[in-house]
Amino acid sequence: MNQLNTGLAIDPDDIAAAAARLQGVARRTPVFTSRTADERTGAQVFFKCENFQRMGAFKFRGAYNALAQFTPAQRRGGVIAFSSGNHAQAIALSARLLGMPSVLVMPQDSPAAKLAATREYQRGQPGSEVVLYDRYTEDREAIGARLAVERSMTLIPPYDHAHVMAGQGTAASELIQETGPLDLLLVCVGGGGLIAGCAVAAAHLSPGVGVVGVEPEAGNDTQQSLARGEIVHIDTPQTIADGAQTQHSGRLTFPVIRRLVREIVTVSDAQLVRTMRFFAERMKMVVEPTGCLAAAALLEGVVPARGQRVGVIVSGGNVDLARYAGFLSGG
Amino acid sequence: MNQLNTGLAIDPDDIAAAAARLQGVARRTPVFTSRTADERTGAQVFFKCENFQRMGAFKFRGAYNALAQFTPAQRRGGVIAFSSGNHAQAIALSARLLGMPSVLVMPQDSPAAKLAATREYQRGQPGSEVVLYDRYTEDREAIGARLAVERSMTLIPPYDHAHVMAGQGTAASELIQETGPLDLLLVCVGGGGLIAGCAVAAAHLSPGVGVVGVEPEAGNDTQQSLARGEIVHIDTPQTIADGAQTQHSGRLTFPVIRRLVREIVTVSDAQLVRTMRFFAERMKMVVEPTGCLAAAALLEGVVPARGQRVGVIVSGGNVDLARYAGFLSGG
Repeated sequence: MNQLNTGLAIDPDDIAAAAARLQGVARRTPVFTSRTADERTGAQVFFKCENFQRMGAFKFRGAYNALAQFTPAQRRGGVIAFSSGNHAQAIALSARLLGMPSVLVMPQDSPAAKLAATREYQRGQPGSEVVLYDRYTEDREAIGARLAVERSMTLIPPYDHAHVMAGQGTAASELIQETGPLDLLLVCVGGGGLIAGCAVAAAHLSPGVGVVGVEPEAGNDTQQSLARGEIVHIDTPQTIADGAQTQHSGRLTFPVIRRLVREIVTVSDAQLVRTMRFFAERMKMVVEPTGCLAAAALLEGVVPARGQRVGVIVSGGNVDLARYAGFLSGG
Repeated sequence: MNQLNTGLAIDPDDIAAAAARLQGVARRTPVFTSRTADERTGAQVFFKCENFQRMGAFKFRGAYNALAQFTPAQRRGGVIAFSSGNHAQAIALSARLLGMPSVLVMPQDSPAAKLAATREYQRGQPGSEVVLYDRYTEDREAIGARLAVERSMTLIPPYDHAHVMAGQGTAASELIQETGPLDLLLVCVGGGGLIAGCAVAAAHLSPGVGVVGVEPEAGNDTQQSLARGEIVHIDTPQTIADGAQTQHSGRLTFPVIRRLVREIVTVSDAQLVRTMRFFAERMKMVVEPTGCLAAAALLEGVVPARGQRVGVIVSGGNVDLARYAGFLSGG
């Protein structure tokens, strides 16, 4: 237990325990460097590449860490989650690895590739299914809650859950174990699960590090929440960063962010597209728009970093190929 | 010296010496795995990701290994090379790192991005320049030979050179050091520098490994050469694999291929595009068409590999973004 974190949902021991659970299950993703990035920023930049994580995003860490702690009775019942994005695939894959059923409540109009990927992860796991809903007329939380009761399944939310947050924090602990202490750590912010976990890990392993969150310009609810000192709700933001289209941070994540995050900055969709092109052209990696948030704040000069050692979490790489091709050719 | 390789241009000691020269200069590129690739092939597949190498391709290894062995007089004169592709950038970058001038003879109609990248690598290196020629009316070999004499520069060819071949072989030695012995090693074939170096390394570190070369269907000169027992010359092949548009293998590379390579197979452009999409979608990496050759032979079932441990060299990731976007959206 770390004094610094007293009263928060997770502490560094939770992250160490998550790391042990994920050992040999999650990938220890590589840390990449880029001379171009260093020259452009005057900093020494370390990219933690969670786009190479299993199922293509950091979300696997939190989902698996949560499901691995189910009681035998919970395992028998299985897991239910609602998500149109990476959380769905993370839950489906984790459930299969742990041999339990999963039900994913997903919008009727989800991209076919995402539905297929989720069903593929569920294959061979009896009791598993994708339940479709109409996002304009139905309430996914109500559907999820009803099914959880009817089927004795445990609901795992995408970010506001201590086990999920602790799992996500292992991305930062792995990074800092590899690079040594950092001056700055940049992390994207949706509901805040990733940045909360990473901030707890970083404060412990690299005391004095400045943790900076990055939101899309159109969806700066957490920035507003920090300014107000309370969780602010916004309308679903219009941004290409679909993983950060959250309307508010969580009851568990916000107190961590408030205590351990130095500031929240924002970047525009145009800056995300330029960063996506940078990753493809110079670093040969496919990064989804949300995965570009942290890097964009650095490469576009939103957060000055000259002379500093900077960690950047590249959160994921799941983007429909046709859409991705459009981003690459359009800029 | 290895009995097996007697009389060939390089032996395993040359590759070990190259590895020592490249230590801390070239990247030790990651070896990636993919459950999807394993499921599809029934094999255990290891991808050696040279698209993450400095300047985006394995070519850096051979170029640096050659230039690092220049005499003081050669260093003062500098290096000259002709190439429209990755060899140009590899030479320019290596020359800068070693503090010598470089002259690159490149086609007038080279993509602007390639010319810019080459000039960028030459920046701050007096005596360096890009010399443009008309590929329809001028002979680049003659231009190169003339400039080499006039300027006392040493010409480094893209593949038919022992130091270049030995440098390229370090890609396979690193791979096998990481994975342990392999049953099969798949390598793309242009002029044969990469596969010759890799075959020597593999025969030494993984005795009994089957080394298979992969050429574009339209440009199977090495396959023809093996069948005939002598170097066959073909017209410049029409294929999207621009790094394998060679007309013939080399006087030094061919004897190595003949002795150590089990067979040469071919893949179509359509198979390369599907493989490029696989890499982007499932492995989140940008791979150029030539870099997809070896993987395509495996993933498309051209080379059966069920139950085997298979190494695949992913040779590079340098592809114009607009062209790449076309491949991703077109398939």
